[in-house]
Amino acid sequence: MAAKTQTTALFLCLLICISAVYGHKTRSRRPCKELVFFFHDVLYQGHNRNNATAVIVASPQWGNKTAMAKPFNFGDLVVFDDPITLDNNLHSPPVGRAQGTYFYDQWSIYGAWLGFSFLFNSTDYVGTLNFAGADPLINKTRDISVIGGTGDFFMARGVATVSTDAFEGDVYFRLRVDIRLYECW
Amino acid sequence: MAAKTQTTALFLCLLICISAVYGHKTRSRRPCKELVFFFHDVLYQGHNRNNATAVIVASPQWGNKTAMAKPFNFGDLVVFDDPITLDNNLHSPPVGRAQGTYFYDQWSIYGAWLGFSFLFNSTDYVGTLNFAGADPLINKTRDISVIGGTGDFFMARGVATVSTDAFEGDVYFRLRVDIRLYECW
Amino acid sequence: MAAKTQTTALFLCLLICISAVYGHKTRSRRPCKELVFFFHDVLYQGHNRNNATAVIVASPQWGNKTAMAKPFNFGDLVVFDDPITLDNNLHSPPVGRAQGTYFYDQWSIYGAWLGFSFLFNSTDYVGTLNFAGADPLINKTRDISVIGGTGDFFMARGVATVSTDAFEGDVYFRLRVDIRLYECW
Repeated sequence: MAAKTQTTALFLCLLICISAVYGHKTRSRRPCKELVFFFHDVLYQGHNRNNATAVIVASPQWGNKTAMAKPFNFGDLVVFDDPITLDNNLHSPPVGRAQGTYFYDQWSIYGAWLGFSFLFNSTDYVGTLNFAGADPLINKTRDISVIGGTGDFFMARGVATVSTDAFEGDVYFRLRVDIRLYECW
Repeated sequence: MAAKTQTTALFLCLLICISAVYGHKTRSRRPCKELVFFFHDVLYQGHNRNNATAVIVASPQWGNKTAMAKPFNFGDLVVFDDPITLDNNLHSPPVGRAQGTYFYDQWSIYGAWLGFSFLFNSTDYVGTLNFAGADPLINKTRDISVIGGTGDFFMARGVATVSTDAFEGDVYFRLRVDIRLYECW
Repeated sequence: MAAKTQTTALFLCLLICISAVYGHKTRSRRPCKELVFFFHDVLYQGHNRNNATAVIVASPQWGNKTAMAKPFNFGDLVVFDDPITLDNNLHSPPVGRAQGTYFYDQWSIYGAWLGFSFLFNSTDYVGTLNFAGADPLINKTRDISVIGGTGDFFMARGVATVSTDAFEGDVYFRLRVDIRLYECW
């Protein structure tokens, strides 16, 4: 009886083993790490070089580098170096920098594409997280991909949910980023 | 005898377990999802703003924003918002949008780099796929990376094989994209 | 006694199985592949079109396309097609091309963001590696992400450690890239 049970358990175990190794794995949708940050973007508009954090570097034929192109900013490419904070206050002590590019890529509505990194070098975190994905601004929340990480975020992958936390014309916006990592090493 | 067999099986099982958990896994090269799409790019050339889907926003010193730079378009950076269709007909009902950038980055031959997303919001799919990679246009097919996904494509990874399905001077091209996902969650 | 031991081993095995399949896996930080390359970037400065490998295609309002913007090149976006060599000699036979973009995205110090591919088509390797990440030039070494690969580097992921191996004003720089892949298929 005991031997029979043991044999059954053994076969079950072998089955699980083989499916784990050779089959497509059941992966956990429970995050292994969750983080929330805000970052703050002040666009250069020709006169505010001292406090700007972002600058238009490319634009369509009908655009220029000190004002967003009409309509829908289509074709404007911005390079940014934005402070990251733990709360929604621009003047809170930054815990890192969000650096990269966004460019507006929708003709008939506001939408952008993001390629950027979070750079941390504090007592809490040392390392980077890299992001890429579409940001259709019309949606309250937008999901982009965490495509990699280094340092404390070595080899991380996940999904970041971006939402516009504040928006003041073309000058200032604040994004809230809810990061959920599903691959932690 | 039975006990001996059982012991042998047990050790085999333990071995597989340990190699699965601590070793480098044997991964399946059988796709967990396959998809084929076409997308259509109509370049803005100064006069066709009404039907253009893509626009040059940056170019080298010798270039401009209404015509490709010579030679080989090197240095031209394009932002696009292209319709995705299920077949090769530009006028088929779009099932999503391909949005992002391509830029020509080869001096001595046609070649580009792609960073873009597929955005789906239909009865078939809701979500995004994010892509990055080199597109050496001289090759009949080019492989780029699926670097992430959201929604129905949550955490996806894979390889997309891109081929030029049609090409009409600098005005219009159509890409066929064979997507093979090897990580599905 | 033997039966008891066997039962214990069996349960241990089941436990490992279940944790491997359903839990967050212990992943190996031992690389499955290590590679070292150098690549060489000669910036176009208005007069050296014949030997330049990289060109400024976008710049902030105060910049231009034949010289880096002051301060810290902020906002300059460069497209490059650089030779890859096995050693630090620009004139060694190239084993591939590094193609993509870098743009300077720090206001108060030198720092860039990289999005590019290594393209190999030699007896050693056929395929591509795709990279993205922040490159804070002030640090001796900088880690970026290997976000995917194709061909011989099918589905690769890893970390690449970038260091500036030579730097001659704004005209020439050479990067050493230590690639460590942790996901090999």
